[in-house]
Amino acid sequence: MGPALRLRRLAGWALLGRGKLDAEVARLAALRASLCSDTADGGDKQRHQSARSGGGGGGKLILKTAKGTRDFQPAQMAIRERVFNTIVQTFKRHGAETIDTPVFELKDVLTGKYGEDSKLIYDLKDQGGEILSLRYDLTVPFARYVAMNKISNIKRYQIAKVYRRDQPSQARGRFREFYQCDFDIAGAYDPMVPDAECVRIVAEILQSLQLGGFVVKVNHRQILDGLFEVCGVPADQFRTICSSVDKLDKSPWEEVKREMVDEKQLAPAVADRIGHYVQYHGGVELVDTLQADTALSACKNVRDGLEAMRAFLGYCQLYGVAEHVRFDMSLARGLDYYTGVIYEAVLADGDVGSIAGGGRYDGLVGMFDPKGRSVPCVGVSIGIERVFALMEARADAAAGRTRTTDTEVYVCSAQKGLLDERMKLLTMLWDADVKAEQSYKKNPKLLQQLQYCEEHGVPFAIVLGESELQRGVVKLRHVATREEQEVQRDQLVPVLRSRLQSLG
Amino acid sequence: MGPALRLRRLAGWALLGRGKLDAEVARLAALRASLCSDTADGGDKQRHQSARSGGGGGGKLILKTAKGTRDFQPAQMAIRERVFNTIVQTFKRHGAETIDTPVFELKDVLTGKYGEDSKLIYDLKDQGGEILSLRYDLTVPFARYVAMNKISNIKRYQIAKVYRRDQPSQARGRFREFYQCDFDIAGAYDPMVPDAECVRIVAEILQSLQLGGFVVKVNHRQILDGLFEVCGVPADQFRTICSSVDKLDKSPWEEVKREMVDEKQLAPAVADRIGHYVQYHGGVELVDTLQADTALSACKNVRDGLEAMRAFLGYCQLYGVAEHVRFDMSLARGLDYYTGVIYEAVLADGDVGSIAGGGRYDGLVGMFDPKGRSVPCVGVSIGIERVFALMEARADAAAGRTRTTDTEVYVCSAQKGLLDERMKLLTMLWDADVKAEQSYKKNPKLLQQLQYCEEHGVPFAIVLGESELQRGVVKLRHVATREEQEVQRDQLVPVLRSRLQSLG
Repeated sequence: MGPALRLRRLAGWALLGRGKLDAEVARLAALRASLCSDTADGGDKQRHQSARSGGGGGGKLILKTAKGTRDFQPAQMAIRERVFNTIVQTFKRHGAETIDTPVFELKDVLTGKYGEDSKLIYDLKDQGGEILSLRYDLTVPFARYVAMNKISNIKRYQIAKVYRRDQPSQARGRFREFYQCDFDIAGAYDPMVPDAECVRIVAEILQSLQLGGFVVKVNHRQILDGLFEVCGVPADQFRTICSSVDKLDKSPWEEVKREMVDEKQLAPAVADRIGHYVQYHGGVELVDTLQADTALSACKNVRDGLEAMRAFLGYCQLYGVAEHVRFDMSLARGLDYYTGVIYEAVLADGDVGSIAGGGRYDGLVGMFDPKGRSVPCVGVSIGIERVFALMEARADAAAGRTRTTDTEVYVCSAQKGLLDERMKLLTMLWDADVKAEQSYKKNPKLLQQLQYCEEHGVPFAIVLGESELQRGVVKLRHVATREEQEVQRDQLVPVLRSRLQSLG
Repeated sequence: MGPALRLRRLAGWALLGRGKLDAEVARLAALRASLCSDTADGGDKQRHQSARSGGGGGGKLILKTAKGTRDFQPAQMAIRERVFNTIVQTFKRHGAETIDTPVFELKDVLTGKYGEDSKLIYDLKDQGGEILSLRYDLTVPFARYVAMNKISNIKRYQIAKVYRRDQPSQARGRFREFYQCDFDIAGAYDPMVPDAECVRIVAEILQSLQLGGFVVKVNHRQILDGLFEVCGVPADQFRTICSSVDKLDKSPWEEVKREMVDEKQLAPAVADRIGHYVQYHGGVELVDTLQADTALSACKNVRDGLEAMRAFLGYCQLYGVAEHVRFDMSLARGLDYYTGVIYEAVLADGDVGSIAGGGRYDGLVGMFDPKGRSVPCVGVSIGIERVFALMEARADAAAGRTRTTDTEVYVCSAQKGLLDERMKLLTMLWDADVKAEQSYKKNPKLLQQLQYCEEHGVPFAIVLGESELQRGVVKLRHVATREEQEVQRDQLVPVLRSRLQSLG
């Protein structure tokens, strides 16, 4: 979110009163404290010392959330819930079940799965007992779950928080605690059938979130490996050169080449051959082009990978998503465990980086199985924090305020001494499953009660007064138009229902 | 869940085939490993050593979740989702917003809030940076949130996992990672108005979950303090004697008295006076009885507390929940931070312990505010793990299997070579927001496809064959009755919709 948007939000909140503004300023200050500081961890330590010196008694205790984490306010939660619902609806449209795994795992479960990134894992203190770490992603716990439960096939989604001791960056939407939304298909099936469905799912989600145009870049690890072979990369350098190629979406070729040659001692001519091929991108016609390349097609890995890619692109066509798919030779993905197709979705507008990514990992479950029995898997992860950021910016830009409650009617007193009557009416409404609130004050002012309705977008107010009580009626007020009608008490629930329905 | 139920579940699963049974057995073994062992942490350490000796390569790695934690299988998740929905619906019926806070806090935030239980807090390893701990409950982070954001009033719910290094016990549904469902009202309001609504919310939730009869025991910290004063407990022992009284729901009076006298050096006569009063329970008539007790009514704390209790019980009457509420002088609650009304709900049937609890805590936010500004709060927490256990037992006892997907239709091939046609049809169905699946095999057997539908409770199957394709129709099969009809392809979606609707 840019400063302009932020200002607009502040201006909007100012209308809602000083208290809200203070709250928002405090929140921004906390966010800045936890995110924008470019101090290394040493800076934290210093800050923490002063925090501790205050003790727990409220003295000099620094009020903040842990570095790289944040609270979600009600308005943010309302957006988050909508986004989750859309995503879960899509997963369910494809017949997925859901599971849950603990937030921490035995450290051994995570060991040796993330390569260099292992240093970002949060460990728990040894307090006597098992050695535990917070999960780094949902994929490794899922593989552990599949192996431990001896599952041979499952199609599951999981939405949960993961933890990485990375340098946080608000601008890049990078936090130390963040949600992942994963969908995976485990099981031995025919090639590319589940793989293509993952792309279809990404397309459905991005379309239903109305995030504008997007491209799903795809590639295949077998093609990449074959390419490295053909270009002359030593076999034991495939993965590290793959990591270099992965940086092409952020860095120019010259920089990536320098890393390959200077840091990884690759021969410049080999790097140049790679540099030639990674420029290619296109559709199924690129498969034809590469198959016609005699150097490449001499390599079995490339031949097999290209055949797989042809089938994959064909299925994407049948699933109506070919227009979004781009076969991109520069796509490499960082993680070691991918073995087949890999993908990454990027939005056409804005500069938010990849919004979804995934691929096939056929070896991971086998790493957990005592007999090495492997279960092939393919899956995709939605970069939900970036989606939240976009949705929040959109809500900020739009006029009006995001509703944070579903309250349908607010029960007001027009006079003093009517708390008991409000409570009786609320009991009737709650019993009838109407979402209803009142002031927690015995004798609130009518104006304040109506103001609450306007500020919180409550569509209807019921106004109780002595004269109406005596006549067995209540005043039903439409908050937006201020138009009022008298309703018999025993007709209140059906009348309210039908008026709510006509509001839509 | 008793062994009988467990066996019945196993028998039920056996019908579903060997694979499922294996999975269930593995799950039970893992559960036993993580829960039923009565070994102290030393046992864990030993086990861990052998786990580590295998390294991460799949050798001797012991496949388990961390002690006291568990995975949730799809059938458990389906139940969990239903329970959460019911609870959230109730919170929303009362106009609550929701927030989220990080899973860990600066350790200082938790320090000095939980008394003796502080030893159960999970600390993170110091990896350079801030000193962090996993949250122990949602109440303290909520108070930190209110203070940090300078909020003067909020009505919020939060459903999230909390962490306690307690001795796990499957029988008592006690885990080291478990959900809390909290509802709290923060703000300076008139006495007992928000407090009574919390009881109404507990009653709505327990009723809508259909857990049978229940009692909400209520008491007031001011009455308890006054009672201790009258009985002759030294002021500095109020909290520790309160902890002893709290044990009365599990231990007989003699044992509690022994603790008071032997461990806490209370005079036996003082303990006996307490023992006399904590037997009292009843409704508003108990307020009359206690007000008529000259010893008690000489004490201002008691007089004020009883007046508050009278108002509270009156509001419960107006909210239609008085029949469930019992003023119980033996209710004390363990936590130090309560300052007013306290409550605890127990079910009439079974022996599952308390299913909800809470109370008023007016001082907690002030502990975080730099200026000591306090925000009065009252809230309730639903003991959701016990609800899950009851619901799972009920699902086990009931005939049939819990559906874990929402799939409406399964697209089958009757012959070989129809994968492309299935994909085209699925694209049409997904585009129309129909929840649809297919086999990931190119040429699956028809029988296996139909079996999948029966096992997973998919209501409809579409059977594709060459002859139907040529005539532009599909066969729509109702899985339960096996009755089939031919439908024009362009009529498929509306026909399917209307048939799904008529199933309800």
